[in-house]
Amino acid sequence: MATPPPAHPRRLLPLFLGLFQGALLLFFAFFVNYNEPSAQAADTNFMANQLYGIFPLFQDIQVMLVVGLGLLLTFLPRYGLSVLTHNFLLLNFSMQWALVLQGLLHHFHHGQVRLDLHNLLTTEFAAVTVLISVGAVLGRTSLCQLLIMATCEVPIYLASEWAIITSLGVLDAGGTITIHVFSCYFGLGVSKALFRTAQWPVHPKETPTPHSDLLSLVGTLILWVFWPSFIAILCQPGDAQHRAILNTLLAMSASAVTTVVVSSLLERDGKLSPGHLQNGSLAGGVAIGTVADMAMPPVAALALGSLSAVVCILGFRFLTPLLVSKLTLQDQCGIHNLHGLPGILGAAASAMAILVASNNTSSSHFSQGSPTGGNASEVVVGQWEDHRAGRQALYQVAGLAVAGGGSLLAGLLTGAVLRLPCLPQPPEQLCFDDSLYFKIQDQSESLGPGGTAEEVALALKEHV
Amino acid sequence: MATPPPAHPRRLLPLFLGLFQGALLLFFAFFVNYNEPSAQAADTNFMANQLYGIFPLFQDIQVMLVVGLGLLLTFLPRYGLSVLTHNFLLLNFSMQWALVLQGLLHHFHHGQVRLDLHNLLTTEFAAVTVLISVGAVLGRTSLCQLLIMATCEVPIYLASEWAIITSLGVLDAGGTITIHVFSCYFGLGVSKALFRTAQWPVHPKETPTPHSDLLSLVGTLILWVFWPSFIAILCQPGDAQHRAILNTLLAMSASAVTTVVVSSLLERDGKLSPGHLQNGSLAGGVAIGTVADMAMPPVAALALGSLSAVVCILGFRFLTPLLVSKLTLQDQCGIHNLHGLPGILGAAASAMAILVASNNTSSSHFSQGSPTGGNASEVVVGQWEDHRAGRQALYQVAGLAVAGGGSLLAGLLTGAVLRLPCLPQPPEQLCFDDSLYFKIQDQSESLGPGGTAEEVALALKEHV
Amino acid sequence: MATPPPAHPRRLLPLFLGLFQGALLLFFAFFVNYNEPSAQAADTNFMANQLYGIFPLFQDIQVMLVVGLGLLLTFLPRYGLSVLTHNFLLLNFSMQWALVLQGLLHHFHHGQVRLDLHNLLTTEFAAVTVLISVGAVLGRTSLCQLLIMATCEVPIYLASEWAIITSLGVLDAGGTITIHVFSCYFGLGVSKALFRTAQWPVHPKETPTPHSDLLSLVGTLILWVFWPSFIAILCQPGDAQHRAILNTLLAMSASAVTTVVVSSLLERDGKLSPGHLQNGSLAGGVAIGTVADMAMPPVAALALGSLSAVVCILGFRFLTPLLVSKLTLQDQCGIHNLHGLPGILGAAASAMAILVASNNTSSSHFSQGSPTGGNASEVVVGQWEDHRAGRQALYQVAGLAVAGGGSLLAGLLTGAVLRLPCLPQPPEQLCFDDSLYFKIQDQSESLGPGGTAEEVALALKEHV
Repeated sequence: MATPPPAHPRRLLPLFLGLFQGALLLFFAFFVNYNEPSAQAADTNFMANQLYGIFPLFQDIQVMLVVGLGLLLTFLPRYGLSVLTHNFLLLNFSMQWALVLQGLLHHFHHGQVRLDLHNLLTTEFAAVTVLISVGAVLGRTSLCQLLIMATCEVPIYLASEWAIITSLGVLDAGGTITIHVFSCYFGLGVSKALFRTAQWPVHPKETPTPHSDLLSLVGTLILWVFWPSFIAILCQPGDAQHRAILNTLLAMSASAVTTVVVSSLLERDGKLSPGHLQNGSLAGGVAIGTVADMAMPPVAALALGSLSAVVCILGFRFLTPLLVSKLTLQDQCGIHNLHGLPGILGAAASAMAILVASNNTSSSHFSQGSPTGGNASEVVVGQWEDHRAGRQALYQVAGLAVAGGGSLLAGLLTGAVLRLPCLPQPPEQLCFDDSLYFKIQDQSESLGPGGTAEEVALALKEHV
Repeated sequence: MATPPPAHPRRLLPLFLGLFQGALLLFFAFFVNYNEPSAQAADTNFMANQLYGIFPLFQDIQVMLVVGLGLLLTFLPRYGLSVLTHNFLLLNFSMQWALVLQGLLHHFHHGQVRLDLHNLLTTEFAAVTVLISVGAVLGRTSLCQLLIMATCEVPIYLASEWAIITSLGVLDAGGTITIHVFSCYFGLGVSKALFRTAQWPVHPKETPTPHSDLLSLVGTLILWVFWPSFIAILCQPGDAQHRAILNTLLAMSASAVTTVVVSSLLERDGKLSPGHLQNGSLAGGVAIGTVADMAMPPVAALALGSLSAVVCILGFRFLTPLLVSKLTLQDQCGIHNLHGLPGILGAAASAMAILVASNNTSSSHFSQGSPTGGNASEVVVGQWEDHRAGRQALYQVAGLAVAGGGSLLAGLLTGAVLRLPCLPQPPEQLCFDDSLYFKIQDQSESLGPGGTAEEVALALKEHV
Repeated sequence: MATPPPAHPRRLLPLFLGLFQGALLLFFAFFVNYNEPSAQAADTNFMANQLYGIFPLFQDIQVMLVVGLGLLLTFLPRYGLSVLTHNFLLLNFSMQWALVLQGLLHHFHHGQVRLDLHNLLTTEFAAVTVLISVGAVLGRTSLCQLLIMATCEVPIYLASEWAIITSLGVLDAGGTITIHVFSCYFGLGVSKALFRTAQWPVHPKETPTPHSDLLSLVGTLILWVFWPSFIAILCQPGDAQHRAILNTLLAMSASAVTTVVVSSLLERDGKLSPGHLQNGSLAGGVAIGTVADMAMPPVAALALGSLSAVVCILGFRFLTPLLVSKLTLQDQCGIHNLHGLPGILGAAASAMAILVASNNTSSSHFSQGSPTGGNASEVVVGQWEDHRAGRQALYQVAGLAVAGGGSLLAGLLTGAVLRLPCLPQPPEQLCFDDSLYFKIQDQSESLGPGGTAEEVALALKEHV
């Protein structure tokens, strides 16, 4: 590193975050309290059982987001510390911000916001949308830009989720439409508005190494293992939850096998692409969210899992290059392939499942768990009458349109905000590089004052 | 890499896997449905409690197999992506295949196969046997060969498990005999039949680096932490399950400490071997499976854990080289030391525990949980009469013989199948090398300013 | 490595550990049995529910200690295998040793020690103190010295915990005082007595690399995710446990955000320090332990989390260099910043919370869960009268003094023991180096008989 790296202003970050923490403390001091049990509901056993049911699943989701998703993003070999930190900070920031907004919007009763584990869970879902969206612009943006992006996205998500679930009554227990489709198109909108001119096709520092691919695959495996908890946590306990777990397991198992088949077929010499494995194995989990708790035949879960893996990998192979060349649309982590396409597939599947269930009223029962953020007790059990099923299927499609269209628009606006001169992008030389935010020890220096090539090689050796 | 790597046919893989997925979809479409609760058992609370009891343990086992075992195998420094992928694919393939077979064999009532979490769990155990067995031949086999091996092993496991548990009535709550001993000798049989001529003793690419040893040790630690869930999941809830957890914790704790003692004693200069730590720490978990839920004194669990660590490390030090030199028997990951020897020890311990319990009827109660794949409700509580105890001890030994002998034979036959000309082995140069199945980026090219980087970079984009 | 590394006697290790295992077996054989349910309490459902409540949290804590803490310590780039192994061995050794001592001290009824999961949990807490304390001297001590240190620390911890919780009645559900403060000052005492002369400020091998920082950060994230389980496991099930989880989540979330703010402000160019992130994010979890289950307003948890992160990072920046230069006190992993300072803060916060609650008796209920190692049923619910609150606040401060002062003294004595000539320290050249305890494969040999320096370097590059 003979030439000094270009300077990048970093003073805005502590200012913005510090002010936010201060405001959060004030808001909590004046408005927030715990959800004290009322006298008649203060049954300790009941509380304990509630907690034992939801808390392990909550922890599973925390592992997914903090460890699994963080590691998945470390495929960028020189940017690992940064992606772990960005992911972790954005999760916490977005949850806190969603807690404030959710308090202001929904729970303002008697001048006090009530806090419980269920509240925190819904703020976690809001944070998930942020973590997915930033995948579109990762590596070429500053941490400040990402925080502003989160600031914009969380309220838009809460509004969108209200419109889709509460207003339209869309069935979406696993957040396929409200979380995955929404965050994908929001992220793409931001990317389009932010990177108006064409970017150089591949930055030399974004090529994965075998080792960064390995860590990233470990992240995928962690996400894959805990995904059933993510889908099941808001389902009606009992039968619907059991079904949601089984359907998710089947869909993700089919995704994993199909990914290997399709990836091997697409490469000229039959080799596998690490990127396909890292993403395709999870596609089934994205798609199954809308229908996981419905009483459909298990083969539907398998088929949906397989199909979404196919769509995801085809997207990587053909659609992403097309988006770059035709629309100059950068999608760094391929979120359109993992969240957008399987999400659309899942929404279509839910409409179809509802229609099929209505034609099949003699033998099949149709039961539906609670929607993502809504009232957990509104359960539709029983047989669908034809006209209700048709209307519901239409609502599913409408929900998809609202999630995709609305978020794309909001993303474009947010991206325009991120181009403000007070939010400088990192210089090209520092893109995808930990040294943008971290003091990276020069290894040849740290290992001694000597510096012949041999000594450096020797030193490197012991680092491996 | 000046010389082009030798070609290896990879077209069979997508063909085989694709056909399998198609057949699976057809089978599910016609035969499989969820286990709908009957009218009188549709108690939501009951279902929910059942689920809360088994689901966290099920997730723990998934973490063990997908993340823990996968990482454990990354001790091969240039083969990390491959072992993670192979392990993940084989788990999913074997579970799906076991689901089909189990449906055909056991659950064919009224033209429909009923599916629930308990079914999936038993297919997971079938998959475990495959994941263990491949450890004997890892690195020198193609993915296609491993899939054919899984195809053969799963039905043989189901038959063997039926013979040992249902027919002989062997007590084996943690799968020591039915899973570990079976899969070990199956794998050794495959290895013997597949590699008939002596292999070069150590391939230059199979020597671990400090970094690959570190990741592998992390895998061991993950397996070590979650092992009690693996043992306890099929035990009778309540007392027996509690005892199984405690016994497993004690045995594995003793294994960990004893491993350090023995490894340090065996090396000339008192240093530790990473391989000993990676395996010996887990040996207690393998051995304790037969007796974990029995009401034996806690000291027995400690002693069994210590002893199995001793046996495991002695096996690595003395037996494995002997198997190579005398029997030309290759055991890549040392599965005989981790699964075979401690498994035999565990079987012997169970016979002894039963005999001791019968001689000690005045003070000791003897209760036994459910066997691995059998009916969870057949519990033997109470005192053993002498003649019943003698017979049961004999059954334990007979079960061991069936598991070891039968699987060795079946493995030899399977290994012969894997030598068919249509299943080529990877060339020596590509053994233990990710580049057999993955496009590995040459970093010196990708990170430098060098020449044709643009073309390479464009091709790489799909990797992201 | 042309010069042979200096010899280090390693024979003491297997001798010491082997004798310990033998003694443990004898103790168990004669004295320990399972906690058989008495006739009237043998309600299987009750046992099962108890187990389902505590076991998942117990597993979470195991993951934290074995995987999370182990990885956190791998920031030493050439010492990863050793820290994982040391951490794992010390955990098991300390738990076994605490099991013996706890049996002798507390549970000696009718000539038998009764064993259940709750016992194991309290021994795990004893082990935690050891794992924290060794952080002060890690890398410059032999494994034997660390084992002797554990042998001394565990009984002192048990006595200290008895004095603080049972005798003084200090409220400390999450172990802030009894575990964190105690182990911090014990470790510092050992370090002071052991390294009397000034050490060179930074050993060349202790500088983290980006990769070792990455793995260490993953360890932090695992600890961060599971910390609520650590705090909540001994709280009264139901309301208090729920509150403990929420308070911990809030405190740690505030810590994470505040860490980024403060770290960025402290560095001249606004960059972040990986070390700050690895430690500051966890400081809130340390501090919240005393008050987590108290019915205080949520803003207090946020403020405590923020403040402890500030204190922790300021400690790293200003106090640690001061301790080295003024007191020649070495604190390798900065345990004083992560455990000492936030622990003192937490103790002060608990005294303040109690006083505030007593002044606010009209609106606020004050309920307190079970202390760390004491009787889980002694719960104080209700309003504090002024004089009782004042006395309790005083007890909290007294507990802090006992934990800090007593452990510092005990640590100094223990450190003096570790200077005995029979316990040699590793030579300077082998400090922070895996080759002290492991045979490290020379890679240039393992990668083939060819071997110009350039080829080796090239080959190595692909490994990185």
